Amino acid sequence: MTDFTEAPYLLADPSRCGHVTLLGAGPGDPELLTLKGAKALQRASLLLYDALVSEEVLALAPPTAERLYVGKQASRHALPQEQIIELMLRLARSGRSLVRLKGGDGYIFGRGGEEALALAEAGVPFDVIPGLSAAQGAGASAGIPLTHRDHAGALVFATGHLRADRQAVDLDWEALARPRQTLVIYMGVGTLPIICRELVAHGLAADTPAAIVERATMPDERCLTGTVTTLPILAALQKVRTPALIVIGSVVGLRPLLAQRRREVRELQACA
Amino acid sequence: MTDFTEAPYLLADPSRCGHVTLLGAGPGDPELLTLKGAKALQRASLLLYDALVSEEVLALAPPTAERLYVGKQASRHALPQEQIIELMLRLARSGRSLVRLKGGDGYIFGRGGEEALALAEAGVPFDVIPGLSAAQGAGASAGIPLTHRDHAGALVFATGHLRADRQAVDLDWEALARPRQTLVIYMGVGTLPIICRELVAHGLAADTPAAIVERATMPDERCLTGTVTTLPILAALQKVRTPALIVIGSVVGLRPLLAQRRREVRELQACA
Repeated sequence: MTDFTEAPYLLADPSRCGHVTLLGAGPGDPELLTLKGAKALQRASLLLYDALVSEEVLALAPPTAERLYVGKQASRHALPQEQIIELMLRLARSGRSLVRLKGGDGYIFGRGGEEALALAEAGVPFDVIPGLSAAQGAGASAGIPLTHRDHAGALVFATGHLRADRQAVDLDWEALARPRQTLVIYMGVGTLPIICRELVAHGLAADTPAAIVERATMPDERCLTGTVTTLPILAALQKVRTPALIVIGSVVGLRPLLAQRRREVRELQACA
Repeated sequence: MTDFTEAPYLLADPSRCGHVTLLGAGPGDPELLTLKGAKALQRASLLLYDALVSEEVLALAPPTAERLYVGKQASRHALPQEQIIELMLRLARSGRSLVRLKGGDGYIFGRGGEEALALAEAGVPFDVIPGLSAAQGAGASAGIPLTHRDHAGALVFATGHLRADRQAVDLDWEALARPRQTLVIYMGVGTLPIICRELVAHGLAADTPAAIVERATMPDERCLTGTVTTLPILAALQKVRTPALIVIGSVVGLRPLLAQRRREVRELQACA
């Protein structure tokens, strides 16, 4: 990995500030990038990318573009958020324009807000290109409509991170345990047992359908379904790995019919 | 408008079932369509589209493609949902392949779930291509990060529709009125005063920042900001029209800094 803290060659002309594009790379399938995002990537000369960005998306940038991995992943920790921001500012101020590439949508649990604010405060020009969030990819791909009039009138996105003191997940369980909504948990593989236990303890029906989707929209996507009671056991048995997305709510019950049809479509495509 | 209930010319070879692509057209800007979505549009010979789909997106389909407007809008009502489904099934069974184009993401308040289930039950092959939802477009474009660690740990999407009896908005106010979350209301222009009043009555601070974004991501986008107390008055004075998106939560307070920078970027682009 490039040691970019010692990479003066990356710097350019400090008399002229560079431009930063905060780009949401979508859920994984490069075809799910936006047209605007694909164009920004194709023009990029320098990329700062996260752990959640797929190889297939990175491949859309020119081979000559410099690629810096700055992303966070439990097992492959790179730079803390403050240092990512510092690096981005330093590069831009030295005249480099760059694409800051994040998995999903930078404004939905992507810390894009923090990065945009830092750029704005520093007077660095930037723009923001949204991306499909993992939940949208998983919904379409695994066959789970996130809302449906007969099932869910609201859709809630939350994260399953452990709190800073690593003792508990800091969520508003009462609000999340309501019926007639779909709850999507990002970054919750490690805390899935806590999440399911707390939801039931706060009143969610123990037989509420629940799914976990690993590598949504990619060819090796896996989706396991059960209930809030059984899903933690299933996920452990099947060794589901982070990052995977958790979807809880009665819309998950629609999946068998929708996913079966999707499989047939895939088979048709494979034959074509 | 085509009277497609009387359009036998649209039917094709009933010995072979057509294929349906449920396609999310994104928030409006055609550049925010996915690569996959753009390809599906460019291949389309028949489109069924909604009121929320922009002219610019429709223009991506070949000029020869047949375009059927089936969309719902208060002032321009076309087909009820059941008839849209019936038409879609009839066309597919007659051998026509078609793209069912919806504003935003069909699986987030787009009734894509209902349509996908009807197709699956009828044995019509289909696939689902997600699109950016209006909230994502508005967030990036108007300068409102939907989540931010210092402001919101959860993101809630709900609709502001009146209930079927047209007496009240049927939402779980207690869950929506929580602090430390961002609340996005779709289809809430008409019920904005009710929504803001109920949120405050259920405990949301009266000075919580709130925004309404009209025609997000389009050149004539407008964004008004205030608080849950002042926004209904502002929106009425400024004659905000449906469909506009409502965003409530302290992330809206980040907008002045982010939007100012965005304006400068736009001016730079205009000069370039």
